Amino acid sequence: DFLHALDEVKPAFGTDDSELEDVLPFGIIEYSEGIRHILKDGMLYVKTVKEQPNLRVMSVLLHGPRSSGKTALAAKIAQLSDFPFIKLITPAALVGYRDELAKKDYLHKIFTDAYKSPLSLLIIDNIERLIDWVPVGARFSGSILNTLVTLFATPPPKGHRLLVLATTSQRSVLEQLDVTSAFDHTIPVPAISDASELKAVLEQVQAFDGNHEGVVEDIHQTTGSSEVNVGIKTILTTLETAKLSEHPEEWFVEQVSGLIARGP
Amino acid sequence: DFLHALDEVKPAFGTDDSELEDVLPFGIIEYSEGIRHILKDGMLYVKTVKEQPNLRVMSVLLHGPRSSGKTALAAKIAQLSDFPFIKLITPAALVGYRDELAKKDYLHKIFTDAYKSPLSLLIIDNIERLIDWVPVGARFSGSILNTLVTLFATPPPKGHRLLVLATTSQRSVLEQLDVTSAFDHTIPVPAISDASELKAVLEQVQAFDGNHEGVVEDIHQTTGSSEVNVGIKTILTTLETAKLSEHPEEWFVEQVSGLIARGP
Amino acid sequence: DFLHALDEVKPAFGTDDSELEDVLPFGIIEYSEGIRHILKDGMLYVKTVKEQPNLRVMSVLLHGPRSSGKTALAAKIAQLSDFPFIKLITPAALVGYRDELAKKDYLHKIFTDAYKSPLSLLIIDNIERLIDWVPVGARFSGSILNTLVTLFATPPPKGHRLLVLATTSQRSVLEQLDVTSAFDHTIPVPAISDASELKAVLEQVQAFDGNHEGVVEDIHQTTGSSEVNVGIKTILTTLETAKLSEHPEEWFVEQVSGLIARGP
Amino acid sequence: DFLHALDEVKPAFGTDDSELEDVLPFGIIEYSEGIRHILKDGMLYVKTVKEQPNLRVMSVLLHGPRSSGKTALAAKIAQLSDFPFIKLITPAALVGYRDELAKKDYLHKIFTDAYKSPLSLLIIDNIERLIDWVPVGARFSGSILNTLVTLFATPPPKGHRLLVLATTSQRSVLEQLDVTSAFDHTIPVPAISDASELKAVLEQVQAFDGNHEGVVEDIHQTTGSSEVNVGIKTILTTLETAKLSEHPEEWFVEQVSGLIARGP
Amino acid sequence: DFLHALDEVKPAFGTDDSELEDVLPFGIIEYSEGIRHILKDGMLYVKTVKEQPNLRVMSVLLHGPRSSGKTALAAKIAQLSDFPFIKLITPAALVGYRDELAKKDYLHKIFTDAYKSPLSLLIIDNIERLIDWVPVGARFSGSILNTLVTLFATPPPKGHRLLVLATTSQRSVLEQLDVTSAFDHTIPVPAISDASELKAVLEQVQAFDGNHEGVVEDIHQTTGSSEVNVGIKTILTTLETAKLSEHPEEWFVEQVSGLIARGP
Amino acid sequence: DFLHALDEVKPAFGTDDSELEDVLPFGIIEYSEGIRHILKDGMLYVKTVKEQPNLRVMSVLLHGPRSSGKTALAAKIAQLSDFPFIKLITPAALVGYRDELAKKDYLHKIFTDAYKSPLSLLIIDNIERLIDWVPVGARFSGSILNTLVTLFATPPPKGHRLLVLATTSQRSVLEQLDVTSAFDHTIPVPAISDASELKAVLEQVQAFDGNHEGVVEDIHQTTGSSEVNVGIKTILTTLETAKLSEHPEEWFVEQVSGLIARGP
Ligand SMILES: Nc1ncnc2c1ncn2[C@@H]1O[C@H](COP(=O)(O)OP(=O)(O)OP(=O)(O)O)[C@@H](O)[C@H]1O
Ligand SMILES: Nc1ncnc2c1ncn2[C@@H]1O[C@H](COP(=O)(O)OP(=O)(O)OP(=O)(O)O)[C@@H](O)[C@H]1O
Ligand SMILES: Nc1ncnc2c1ncn2[C@@H]1O[C@H](COP(=O)(O)OP(=O)(O)OP(=O)(O)O)[C@@H](O)[C@H]1O
Ligand SMILES: Nc1ncnc2c1ncn2[C@@H]1O[C@H](COP(=O)(O)OP(=O)(O)OP(=O)(O)O)[C@@H](O)[C@H]1O
Ligand SMILES: Nc1ncnc2c1ncn2[C@@H]1O[C@H](COP(=O)(O)OP(=O)(O)OP(=O)(O)O)[C@@H](O)[C@H]1O
Ligand SMILES: Nc1ncnc2c1ncn2[C@@H]1O[C@H](COP(=O)(O)OP(=O)(O)OP(=O)(O)O)[C@@H](O)[C@H]1O
Ligand SMILES: [Mg+2]
Ligand SMILES: [Mg+2]
Ligand SMILES: [Mg+2]
Ligand SMILES: [Mg+2]
Ligand SMILES: [Mg+2]
Ligand SMILES: [Mg+2]
Repeated sequence: DFLHALDEVKPAFGTDDSELEDVLPFGIIEYSEGIRHILKDGMLYVKTVKEQPNLRVMSVLLHGPRSSGKTALAAKIAQLSDFPFIKLITPAALVGYRDELAKKDYLHKIFTDAYKSPLSLLIIDNIERLIDWVPVGARFSGSILNTLVTLFATPPPKGHRLLVLATTSQRSVLEQLDVTSAFDHTIPVPAISDASELKAVLEQVQAFDGNHEGVVEDIHQTTGSSEVNVGIKTILTTLETAKLSEHPEEWFVEQVSGLIARGP
Repeated sequence: DFLHALDEVKPAFGTDDSELEDVLPFGIIEYSEGIRHILKDGMLYVKTVKEQPNLRVMSVLLHGPRSSGKTALAAKIAQLSDFPFIKLITPAALVGYRDELAKKDYLHKIFTDAYKSPLSLLIIDNIERLIDWVPVGARFSGSILNTLVTLFATPPPKGHRLLVLATTSQRSVLEQLDVTSAFDHTIPVPAISDASELKAVLEQVQAFDGNHEGVVEDIHQTTGSSEVNVGIKTILTTLETAKLSEHPEEWFVEQVSGLIARGP
Repeated sequence: DFLHALDEVKPAFGTDDSELEDVLPFGIIEYSEGIRHILKDGMLYVKTVKEQPNLRVMSVLLHGPRSSGKTALAAKIAQLSDFPFIKLITPAALVGYRDELAKKDYLHKIFTDAYKSPLSLLIIDNIERLIDWVPVGARFSGSILNTLVTLFATPPPKGHRLLVLATTSQRSVLEQLDVTSAFDHTIPVPAISDASELKAVLEQVQAFDGNHEGVVEDIHQTTGSSEVNVGIKTILTTLETAKLSEHPEEWFVEQVSGLIARGP
Repeated sequence: DFLHALDEVKPAFGTDDSELEDVLPFGIIEYSEGIRHILKDGMLYVKTVKEQPNLRVMSVLLHGPRSSGKTALAAKIAQLSDFPFIKLITPAALVGYRDELAKKDYLHKIFTDAYKSPLSLLIIDNIERLIDWVPVGARFSGSILNTLVTLFATPPPKGHRLLVLATTSQRSVLEQLDVTSAFDHTIPVPAISDASELKAVLEQVQAFDGNHEGVVEDIHQTTGSSEVNVGIKTILTTLETAKLSEHPEEWFVEQVSGLIARGP
Repeated sequence: DFLHALDEVKPAFGTDDSELEDVLPFGIIEYSEGIRHILKDGMLYVKTVKEQPNLRVMSVLLHGPRSSGKTALAAKIAQLSDFPFIKLITPAALVGYRDELAKKDYLHKIFTDAYKSPLSLLIIDNIERLIDWVPVGARFSGSILNTLVTLFATPPPKGHRLLVLATTSQRSVLEQLDVTSAFDHTIPVPAISDASELKAVLEQVQAFDGNHEGVVEDIHQTTGSSEVNVGIKTILTTLETAKLSEHPEEWFVEQVSGLIARGP
Repeated sequence: DFLHALDEVKPAFGTDDSELEDVLPFGIIEYSEGIRHILKDGMLYVKTVKEQPNLRVMSVLLHGPRSSGKTALAAKIAQLSDFPFIKLITPAALVGYRDELAKKDYLHKIFTDAYKSPLSLLIIDNIERLIDWVPVGARFSGSILNTLVTLFATPPPKGHRLLVLATTSQRSVLEQLDVTSAFDHTIPVPAISDASELKAVLEQVQAFDGNHEGVVEDIHQTTGSSEVNVGIKTILTTLETAKLSEHPEEWFVEQVSGLIARGP
């Protein structure tokens, strides 16, 4: 199995191990072939940055609907990369800074720190929130946007290499902002697409004492379709609440059917 | 009775008891089955946050028309939650701060305080006013919006848990601002919908020396419809003024009919 | 007579008596039944705030065309209220402050002062100018708007009560700004509507040595209609200038006819 | 003659005599009946402010096309008013101040100074430039606009009286900004309308050694119309340059015909 | 010859002689009758400001397409004016100042300096760049615009006189900004219009060892028209580069034909 | 060969040699005739600035699609220019400055430094990013734009000469911003246009052990067209990653075909 093989690569982080663990509360469940491909692609870019002399910087965008697992997959690639410097840049980290200037300084600091390591990997999580994107009035921090785009396209000093993994659930917004063309590569991260993938998830987490078949069938009946299009994160957290309700299976079926009906 | 059963759960607040009492001047009147369901749902989310290890934060949005009782219901759930840290964040609390920075600092402070308790519940009341929303020009404080949305989606440190209850009477505005999708759950809080619910209210507060039937009938006659669509808060405060007028019943009928005619 | 009856209620102001007198240079002339109703409604809200335990704050909006007497009527209600703390907030008071912050501080100060009295009445005069509304570009001070709307909807501390009377000649603007729904009640203040109301005014101020009939008739002839739609303030000040012109009656007829023709 | 009669009223200025002289380099030429009416109206408003007890403030707007003589006429009324305090507020005076705050302070200072005199007259010259109006983007200083509009509508302290004369060549802009309705009266100041008025001007300044008839006739021939619609200021300054050209009459005819053709 | 006659007027500058020389690297070539008229008009305005007592300030706008020679002609008029104080205000001079305030202070300083001389001439070069005009979003510095417009329309103190020459290649922009109507006069400065004017230029600078005829003919052939519409500055600088290319005549023909084809 | 001939011109940089090398990781590959022409044109402008006395400043814009080699070509021209002062201004250099003021100061400093050398060459790389252009809302730093445009059109002091090479992949944006007309010359830099040019590149870098023919043929087959329209930079970096993949040729064909299909 691919993932297990990868797992044998021993990660050697500096300081950020628990940070990555924190965004992987449920680990990575291999519910589809696609998951394997994403990790494989990720590892190829890791290797290129590590080994090719003429490329000192590479940037990759993971994009997909809300809750589809973008942050978790970026974190997994980082864990597997074996890079000595890994850092996660999140909206929550920026929110504590009082103004754009302080935020920009913080971002500079992280990149400068990264430049000190021979091999660095930065996860820029949820770009649209980092730049404070709001659709009403198409508002955003142009200054943070420009800082980010310039920084992740600038090669580190000689002898240093940098891989940037960014995530977004608003690809079309980034497209409009002319940001996507600044990435060297993009990786789509889809939601759980259909009943069979959903069953795979329930199986692997051993939900409902084995009655996955029945639950997935009930959802299918309720929605009248085998399409799902709900993110893995939503499924897993709904499961947690369902466990505490009086009738877990009914409650889960009702909730997930509602989510499917409402659409993404 | 559900509410009475819940009442037996003994609340143990730190400091904010009177704060909650203050937004419940008339208590919670059980004028419909829906009220019970709202409280039951609320208590399920309370339980999930308390007990499930993989979920350190959960956010719930109570939305409905003006005066429908959103703040009061959030406060009731908080009272029933038995959480050691409970805090109400209101527009009135923010208005004293001189600029956006000070307001953001205040919000940070509250969340930081909440993080110190193992179990915290924050009520973010009237989001649209907290962000200074004005429909003309679609103005709002993007900076406070981003602070709020980032904060209520960020898990507290390990070993701590947070439930966020937010209220709004402008759901469609939040929709446009792409805020609703950041909530884990939403609870609709409707206005008093029809004559029979209105009658239930009047009965329970023992208005008009028992002549609820007659008053509700008069309103029905005046408006020519059994629809009401007026918020519980408006009904209860109109009642207070009516009591002082020369002809309480007539005055109440006239006012409420006017409100029904004008629509929500 | 209603007004005379009310006059017997002895007013007991703290400091602001002359302030109220200042906006009543011509007193209140009872030129129509409507004037009496406005004052009666006002006094009912005064009474409710004074006596009902569950309502600590109430806000009322007086709206009508320019010069229709809104400020004077609010001042009269305040005089009649017998409240120990009364204060008039006007654009002229705010204009001296250098920026929005200073203006907000001033507003806070007034509300804080009001909270010290068991019973307070605040007149927020000419809201659209207080928020520096300009129709070109739909400009206004969102920050002062939010301060005002939040402050007049917030109950004072326990044991204290507050009645807010606000005036505006731009109701539709306030509607767009979503301010009107924040008021508990609204009172329309129309202009002098027709020839008979105009005659009542001229009679009471004893203009033109008793020849009101003739003057009003002349105006009717000139405009070809018995409609007037001119505010009481405009009529009374035009009268003052007319007295100094060579032919007072002709000049008055000409001016007022012009005003009627131009429309509101 | 009306103007000569008025001239006998002896003016008694404090300090600003030369200021007024400065905007009257060519004096006031009585080239039409309209000029007399403007001055007469002006003097009636002067008298009302001086004598009627219930009116402490009055504001008048002089409006008309560029160069039509608005500033000069306001200055003349001021000269004739016999008020002890007279002050001219011009864009040139404001331009030296570094920001809006300093400009507002300057305006406050002038009004405060005026309030010290029992009778004051302020000329607010060229309102649209005072508020830095630019048609592209409909830009203007809302803060100076609000300061001006509030100040000229606010009565001075008891025992003091104020007459405000404002000028503008952009009446429709002020209309949009909802400023005109704040004036108690408006006085239109038209340009020189036709050949006969133009001839009256040339006669009175004794241009072209008495050959006015011929010059005006030539202009009529060139433009093919007896309409003029050029401001008195433009006519008088063009005359000055013409005097220095090789063929004064031809040059004048050519220039003025061009101005007439281009339109206002 | 007119220009030579003018040249005999001995200029007496204070300090700015080389400044003017700097914008006249190729002098003024008399390639058309229009050039003479521009200088003659300019000198008439110089004379009026110098001699007419009632006009203390005059402003003139030179406008025309890019590279048409506006700055050079304004500089030439200044050289010929014999005024003791002459100053060139350029975008390059303003660019060194850090913000709008500093720029406004610089402009004030220059006008204040000018007011110290009995006769001053200021060239305001490239107004649209001085106000930082950018067509996208119609951006510009309203504050510098207002400073400039107010300053060049304000008369200097008594006994002092000021002539302002401004240049622009964006007349329609200034029209929209309502700036042109603030000028007393305007002078159009066209580009080289046709083959014969182009030939006159080449003749006078003795280009291509006398083969002007052939070169102009070749251009005519290439473009198929005798129209040129290219500014004198572009022609002269293209000539300089052409001289260094391998085949000067061919290169010049090719370049200029390209410029003509692309249009202004 | 042209390039080799040029190579013999010995470059004599002050300090910036490695800076230029840094943007030429793969050198300049002569994959088409066009490349030679670009360098030849560049060298002609270098010569004009060096030798013509009346031209102290010249500005040239290199424009073309992303990754087409604009920066590398500008750097090559700079290397070949033999100018004592050469400096590269990049978005990455500006990003470290905290605000617009600091950025403007930095730009001033560079130009001031350049003015100290008798011959200077400045590369203004990626103008649209230097001015923080974002298409959403057409945002950009007007202040940096104006600084740049003014600086590169201003001649250095006497005895000094300056050549400015600017690059952009957003020519139409610069057109809208009215910047292109400020350049003396423009040089288009196209992407690799077709299969034969692509083959030339692969040949020269000796990719795929000589199997260029086959690889290019496979791409042709996959896309069904001989058009390429992919920038040289993208091709060269894709090649680097391809080398590390399991099946380099297949991977390269797949990637490049994808890029061609997606279009520029
Ligand atoms: N195959 C998988 N891929 C990704 N996440 C997985 C997978 N299997 C399980 N998970 C779990 O699902 C959750 C994915 O959440 P994650 O925060 O990464 O989603 P997201 O797409 O970043 O959401 P958001 O749009 O809110 O940023 C994590 O808790 C992770 O442990
Ligand atoms: N079943 C009920 N649900 C909610 N409120 C109730 C109920 N019964 C009585 N009340 C009383 O009704 C009032 C509801 O007012 P509340 O401020 O909660 O409304 P709201 O929807 O938050 O209004 P707003 O839109 O102005 O924020 C409170 O005084 C509360 O005590
Ligand atoms: N019945 C009346 N109602 C109101 N005002 C009256 C009445 N009778 C006489 N007045 C006088 O008319 C004037 C009304 O002016 P007031 O300033 O109140 O009008 P307003 O509607 O507030 O005007 P604005 O739109 O300019 O604010 C006062 O001078 C008041 O003394
Ligand atoms: N009858 C008149 N009315 C006004 N001004 C006159 C008259 N006769 C002569 N003048 C002279 O004409 C000039 C009028 O210029 P003024 O500055 O008042 O015009 P304006 O309308 O204010 O121009 P702008 O629109 O530029 O402000 C003054 O010099 C004044 O002395
Ligand atoms: N008849 C002429 N008129 C103007 N300039 C001339 C003439 N003959 C030669 N020149 C030279 O042509 C050049 C004109 O350039 P100038 O900078 O004045 O043009 P411009 O219209 O101001 O350009 P821009 O639109 O860039 O401001 C100068 O170098 C000047 O010496
Ligand atoms: N003929 C060539 N022209 C340009 N660059 C070449 C050529 N041959 C090889 N290269 C290499 O191709 C790369 C071109 O990248 P460069 O950064 O100059 O592109 P760019 O157009 O500036 O890209 P961007 O649009 O991202 O600014 C450089 O690494 C350069 O060494
Ligand atoms: Mg995520
Ligand atoms: Mg509420
Ligand atoms: Mg009023
Ligand atoms: Mg004027
Ligand atoms: Mg110029
Ligand atoms: Mg580049």
